[in-house]
Amino acid sequence: MTTAAHCPTVLTMAAENLTIDLNADLGESYGNWRMGDDAAMLDIVTSANVACGFHAGDAKTIRETVRHATDRGVVVGAHVSYLDLAGFGRRTIDIEADALEADILYQVAALDGICRSVGTSVQYVKAHGALYHRMNSDPVQAGAVVRGVQAYDSSLPFLGAPSIATGHVAIAAGAVVLSEGFADRVYNDDGVTLMPRTLPGSVLHDHDQVAAQAVRLAESGRFRSLCLHGDTPGAVAHGRAAREALRVAGFTLRSFV
Amino acid sequence: MTTAAHCPTVLTMAAENLTIDLNADLGESYGNWRMGDDAAMLDIVTSANVACGFHAGDAKTIRETVRHATDRGVVVGAHVSYLDLAGFGRRTIDIEADALEADILYQVAALDGICRSVGTSVQYVKAHGALYHRMNSDPVQAGAVVRGVQAYDSSLPFLGAPSIATGHVAIAAGAVVLSEGFADRVYNDDGVTLMPRTLPGSVLHDHDQVAAQAVRLAESGRFRSLCLHGDTPGAVAHGRAAREALRVAGFTLRSFV
Amino acid sequence: MTTAAHCPTVLTMAAENLTIDLNADLGESYGNWRMGDDAAMLDIVTSANVACGFHAGDAKTIRETVRHATDRGVVVGAHVSYLDLAGFGRRTIDIEADALEADILYQVAALDGICRSVGTSVQYVKAHGALYHRMNSDPVQAGAVVRGVQAYDSSLPFLGAPSIATGHVAIAAGAVVLSEGFADRVYNDDGVTLMPRTLPGSVLHDHDQVAAQAVRLAESGRFRSLCLHGDTPGAVAHGRAAREALRVAGFTLRSFV
Amino acid sequence: MTTAAHCPTVLTMAAENLTIDLNADLGESYGNWRMGDDAAMLDIVTSANVACGFHAGDAKTIRETVRHATDRGVVVGAHVSYLDLAGFGRRTIDIEADALEADILYQVAALDGICRSVGTSVQYVKAHGALYHRMNSDPVQAGAVVRGVQAYDSSLPFLGAPSIATGHVAIAAGAVVLSEGFADRVYNDDGVTLMPRTLPGSVLHDHDQVAAQAVRLAESGRFRSLCLHGDTPGAVAHGRAAREALRVAGFTLRSFV
Repeated sequence: MTTAAHCPTVLTMAAENLTIDLNADLGESYGNWRMGDDAAMLDIVTSANVACGFHAGDAKTIRETVRHATDRGVVVGAHVSYLDLAGFGRRTIDIEADALEADILYQVAALDGICRSVGTSVQYVKAHGALYHRMNSDPVQAGAVVRGVQAYDSSLPFLGAPSIATGHVAIAAGAVVLSEGFADRVYNDDGVTLMPRTLPGSVLHDHDQVAAQAVRLAESGRFRSLCLHGDTPGAVAHGRAAREALRVAGFTLRSFV
Repeated sequence: MTTAAHCPTVLTMAAENLTIDLNADLGESYGNWRMGDDAAMLDIVTSANVACGFHAGDAKTIRETVRHATDRGVVVGAHVSYLDLAGFGRRTIDIEADALEADILYQVAALDGICRSVGTSVQYVKAHGALYHRMNSDPVQAGAVVRGVQAYDSSLPFLGAPSIATGHVAIAAGAVVLSEGFADRVYNDDGVTLMPRTLPGSVLHDHDQVAAQAVRLAESGRFRSLCLHGDTPGAVAHGRAAREALRVAGFTLRSFV
Repeated sequence: MTTAAHCPTVLTMAAENLTIDLNADLGESYGNWRMGDDAAMLDIVTSANVACGFHAGDAKTIRETVRHATDRGVVVGAHVSYLDLAGFGRRTIDIEADALEADILYQVAALDGICRSVGTSVQYVKAHGALYHRMNSDPVQAGAVVRGVQAYDSSLPFLGAPSIATGHVAIAAGAVVLSEGFADRVYNDDGVTLMPRTLPGSVLHDHDQVAAQAVRLAESGRFRSLCLHGDTPGAVAHGRAAREALRVAGFTLRSFV
Repeated sequence: MTTAAHCPTVLTMAAENLTIDLNADLGESYGNWRMGDDAAMLDIVTSANVACGFHAGDAKTIRETVRHATDRGVVVGAHVSYLDLAGFGRRTIDIEADALEADILYQVAALDGICRSVGTSVQYVKAHGALYHRMNSDPVQAGAVVRGVQAYDSSLPFLGAPSIATGHVAIAAGAVVLSEGFADRVYNDDGVTLMPRTLPGSVLHDHDQVAAQAVRLAESGRFRSLCLHGDTPGAVAHGRAAREALRVAGFTLRSFV
């Protein structure tokens, strides 16, 4: 016979653990082109990875995104990228380390200045697209990104994967790395790496599956944040389903900051 | 009968006036393309108008320029521009006011963040190329630029012309506007407006003429800074001649900040 | 007593006049960003103004658009623009005439080469956005555009307005100018100039109004083509309504080429 | 005792072999930024690899370069590149094959159209910078480039290296590949691959060494063209020395076309 009254410690611990952050990519419109439903996603997430102008996000879009995020109490992170509008930052680029480092510093500075103009600030950094993946396997580029961020503010945490190159480099440099999981992606049996997008069944398209995966990842205790994709068909519905399932499962949605 | 002994106040005032700032456009390389001789110009000027990436200046170039300027005690200003690499910011663009305002905020923030990463900060703002000229006649664009700068830091002074639209708009917004003269350009008889570049004889190409013009402008007391062009043939020689002539005329070269 | 048998000439003339072209802007996606519903519009129009990469249209998008247009028997025109991705070509730029001329030549050549690779060719040229409007009032830029096109192929007709600067310049240069009307815009009492977009009621949002306006313009006999906007809400529905109304009114939809 | 009279066949063969092409990268300025001394190089080379706007070369620069080349009887080739102004095309980009293919088609078409407007045409294609090197090891990107070129004109030859991936792919697709040597680079003992630039002594800086290397490569009979670098210090002097040494060695400088 086990009741709540018999295990207050466990309950307290559980209550502490029962918070999770939801992050999504926002501010990815550019000039006349729209991307995603930022307004809807801002009602779902607790952290916004805001484009900094290199893969998406003209200055006006960035400013409006930051304003809207702040109005809704959503924390802003710098979604830094290779300079690549034509490829939306999804093409790996063999850029020299010192140029990459400066590009990252420039992006974080630009976004943080816009944040401060509306009374907030950049609270974390996440690499976008191909740079995110390259950092996982290339200590040189990972080091350049970490140095670029730390040149601006050495206290900024990274949202990513602590177990791989980025994480090692960032942690070695004294940075905090916060682990994120992917609510709509299927993991390999190691529970750490993702099944490649190109394999059938690697991306979840069903609301219920996404929601169940979100709860599973949150309950694993291994992640501080779950990433929702904002630019896929059904993104908003997926996000709402995940958020509601997490709430039902007892989680409080709250920024990791 | 007037002697120096009888007018200490006047002498003091004169001594105070006998300082002048020299500014030039720097950091205008982009990737593999070089522009101007920044190293040489940094030994001549006291203020560097540093490109912010919109008309010139990739992030690595900006960072190096800021480092070198700081090493030599040269003050950094944000040389904000239309987004126009192909036209080097020299083409007027009918951009909407809110987009221009955000573009200016973005540029100042990016440059200032890079400055702070090397222990300095943006000390003033100067519009570049076509934007500089447009601001003199268009209160809408001038207002957008002023609001963009003030959104970042309302204490930043503008380097420009207090007597025209920019100045009126900036002053109305509570900004300080510091007047600059052009050492290598011929003024109209009003002593305020410049003879158009397209007219013969409007641009001085002779060292001695540039040097004499610099002294004349400095002695007029109407300017806090003199602009030297860094990307013209003979720019460095002109700058050295102007600097030496000002020194001989009793001026101390010193930033206006 | 008048019967068809008595006036074959008139009938033939009427039949000849009862054709009209419908044109719309296509190929305006860029990388990951989508714009408009090109597939749907290609079932409505007879001429496609295809972006050339300067305001929109990466090379892959252009190539696919040209293929799809050709598959459906839709004629391709070069939708030339200022170099301005951030502003979608909607910002007037004071570019020098020789640079503009070369930019136009480059765009027409690139698009025509892609057309020829799929067995078709550019059949006409239309200026996009701000350049379209600037050409109406600025003979210098209009001349540069006309020279750029004619440097490539002096037989290419222009789609625009013969009554204004563009037309005068083009006609003086020996080019054919084909007049277009705007199905969703309200004309001033002169029947030639458009009520400014900024005025209330200047843009038609109702299907029936757009359809009626299309028929009215076609019946006026003053236009060889009617422009449908492809990137506005309801664009596809407007286009279908206009096409159907023209068909009911006895018009054959056919390219002006 | 051997005299010319005894070996007419050999002499004839030698005379046929005693022609060599010299190529260099031209048209690499962009807007206000200058690169290289095109006027001087056009007096040295017989083939001009003209930038197509993706790594360098605005349309006006391209047009002027093509005009000047044609005036001097220099053959024009399309110097196609990744889209990368910031990196000058020197950064490998993991672009998707269909996007790369379309980008190549677009570039060749744009340059050829400009050529035809001045009465000439693109006579060959050479990949620039990182794309040149990537094509040597990556059959997927090499195939995309070859398909892009052949979509435009299947008869265009490639300037490159027949012995490696590019060559295999191009030859398999029915394209002619013309081999080039590098006058200012040291070869490995295999006589085919280059000593990496990063190794000391891998790049020749002395006129006499460059000239001797040019003659050696020309005499090897393995190359149809020798590449001269136009943007390095001393490039023009190197080129003149190589050209003069080849002339003295009995070579006629002539395009391979």
